[in-house]
Amino acid sequence: MAQVRLQLEEARELAVRALAANGCDQANAAAIADVMIVAERDGCTSHGLFRLPGYVSALASGRADGRAEPAVERIAPAVVRVDGRGGMAPLALERGRVPLIEAARENGIAALALVGIFHMAALWPEVEAVAEEGLCALAVTSSRRLVAPAGGSRAMFGTNPMAFAWPRPGEGPVVFDQAVSVMARGEVMIAARDGHDLPEGVALDADGKPTTDAAAAVDGVLLPFGGYKGSSIGLMIELLAAGLLGENFAFETSAEFADDGGPGRGGELMIAMDPARFGDGAGWAAHSERFFAELLAEDGVRLPGGRRLANRQRIPTDGFEIPDALHGEILELAGGA
Amino acid sequence: MAQVRLQLEEARELAVRALAANGCDQANAAAIADVMIVAERDGCTSHGLFRLPGYVSALASGRADGRAEPAVERIAPAVVRVDGRGGMAPLALERGRVPLIEAARENGIAALALVGIFHMAALWPEVEAVAEEGLCALAVTSSRRLVAPAGGSRAMFGTNPMAFAWPRPGEGPVVFDQAVSVMARGEVMIAARDGHDLPEGVALDADGKPTTDAAAAVDGVLLPFGGYKGSSIGLMIELLAAGLLGENFAFETSAEFADDGGPGRGGELMIAMDPARFGDGAGWAAHSERFFAELLAEDGVRLPGGRRLANRQRIPTDGFEIPDALHGEILELAGGA
Repeated sequence: MAQVRLQLEEARELAVRALAANGCDQANAAAIADVMIVAERDGCTSHGLFRLPGYVSALASGRADGRAEPAVERIAPAVVRVDGRGGMAPLALERGRVPLIEAARENGIAALALVGIFHMAALWPEVEAVAEEGLCALAVTSSRRLVAPAGGSRAMFGTNPMAFAWPRPGEGPVVFDQAVSVMARGEVMIAARDGHDLPEGVALDADGKPTTDAAAAVDGVLLPFGGYKGSSIGLMIELLAAGLLGENFAFETSAEFADDGGPGRGGELMIAMDPARFGDGAGWAAHSERFFAELLAEDGVRLPGGRRLANRQRIPTDGFEIPDALHGEILELAGGA
Repeated sequence: MAQVRLQLEEARELAVRALAANGCDQANAAAIADVMIVAERDGCTSHGLFRLPGYVSALASGRADGRAEPAVERIAPAVVRVDGRGGMAPLALERGRVPLIEAARENGIAALALVGIFHMAALWPEVEAVAEEGLCALAVTSSRRLVAPAGGSRAMFGTNPMAFAWPRPGEGPVVFDQAVSVMARGEVMIAARDGHDLPEGVALDADGKPTTDAAAAVDGVLLPFGGYKGSSIGLMIELLAAGLLGENFAFETSAEFADDGGPGRGGELMIAMDPARFGDGAGWAAHSERFFAELLAEDGVRLPGGRRLANRQRIPTDGFEIPDALHGEILELAGGA
């Protein structure tokens, strides 16, 4: 497949242009472009420009509002609610970040309840941004029904990612972001696009039978990691991102969903905690560094997120590649070169 | 193996007597006995009276203080810290529960930071008790090093259970409690005691080789569920239960540990959230019941904790059985029949 190499800054300008040409105001276009560009910067192809046509479809169909102005309200002393008012998640997250951090510093722990949003970005950028301010953060979101619970063959959970970030003063936070499915939906979509098979245990086809065919998996259901334990986590994330917030469960998202490659409407819960307010004073940072040193003393053990940090050293200089066809599609969405 | 049938109330009295005869004051003896008896009531043998000799050993050796009076302090508006002062966890949890619930109702979300405790009970009783008051609860704790991270063969995590409870007004909460290891340490201990093999993928032996021999697993390391995803959760729990609270990481617990069958010193973090304070008013309960109904519409899908609730219908009437040898040992600890 022919590839086009792009530099991050030109890719960002192109993404902003394509979004602005398809219904986004500048604030939304910039926020959405930024999350795709940080994904490309970190080598996360499945959350990079690959998603742009999907964003545009959901804007073009009117499902999502590219000019939405999120409403931010502290609805309880430690709960910041952001109503995205039917826009994409990135701007709502930007608007909620500082209020969440302030509420967590004031109270020790605080929650960001994000509703009325269309989310299909990775979660790690939002927890990482909070951890860069010295707080620990945990985020979960639901989406449309794609994952079967343990014992079932009907999709009832979204891929329901959970992301976690732990601050490391002086260097990048430790961050993980993992779907409750064995494989992320984005990875399955990439495999289907590229004609690659899936490992066993990843998916059932539309008839509820195990499959390794990525295209069949796209039409079927994904399986949770770790059997019933992963399934419990999927259930918990439905209850936190939908039940707690009063937003769509995955089955509700799907009922109103038109599959244009774009995201469904759902909620996101982020919890931030200030380690300095939990009783260990300033000791927490050195203490957790001793843990990391002990952990990494064995060869073969790595901290999650290391590959992203390595890509981050390289890609801002080298640029990154996307398929020629995708580049052409984006140029067209942007109204030509 | 010969078994003795006991009723819950007589078992509780026996447990209190054995604990009181081995260094506990009445408050600690009652709290510790209660968590073992609710485990037996729910059919969770591995956290029932099976643990009593271990508690007694850790008291007898002086590692844990059976007369500790926990100190409760609201150290931030939404953080309740309970210092167990070197006692067993159950009394500290009892003392922290109401302050945690109050803080969560006031602020929307609150945390209980439990330090200076020796914990080897199940976590579900504490999250269930909070959910019975209408709040959603998540709890994690670390213990001594027993589980290898993905890519490693050296134990760096405790079995690090995560428990979650979601309130269902008018009926019992949905509750799960699962170790980050494929199999709980208690289950492996029971298998070793009874001479049963383990499934593959559960453990490595002392040489870092895969094993299905339960006794070899007791001397080796357990593996996390779901490969690197379960390993990430194990890492997160270390950081929350130890890094955040300023308590022992598993590797630190092990350094001061004497294996008398009793618990190690560690921390526990519990987060409580009040669904009524997240923006959906009173609607959250009916909304989540619609989700449960949809989930359970497929045969073979169950809510976690169902087996415990079924046992709870039966065991308070029928009683439960423990091995004759264990019963004899407990009678002796209690100073004879």
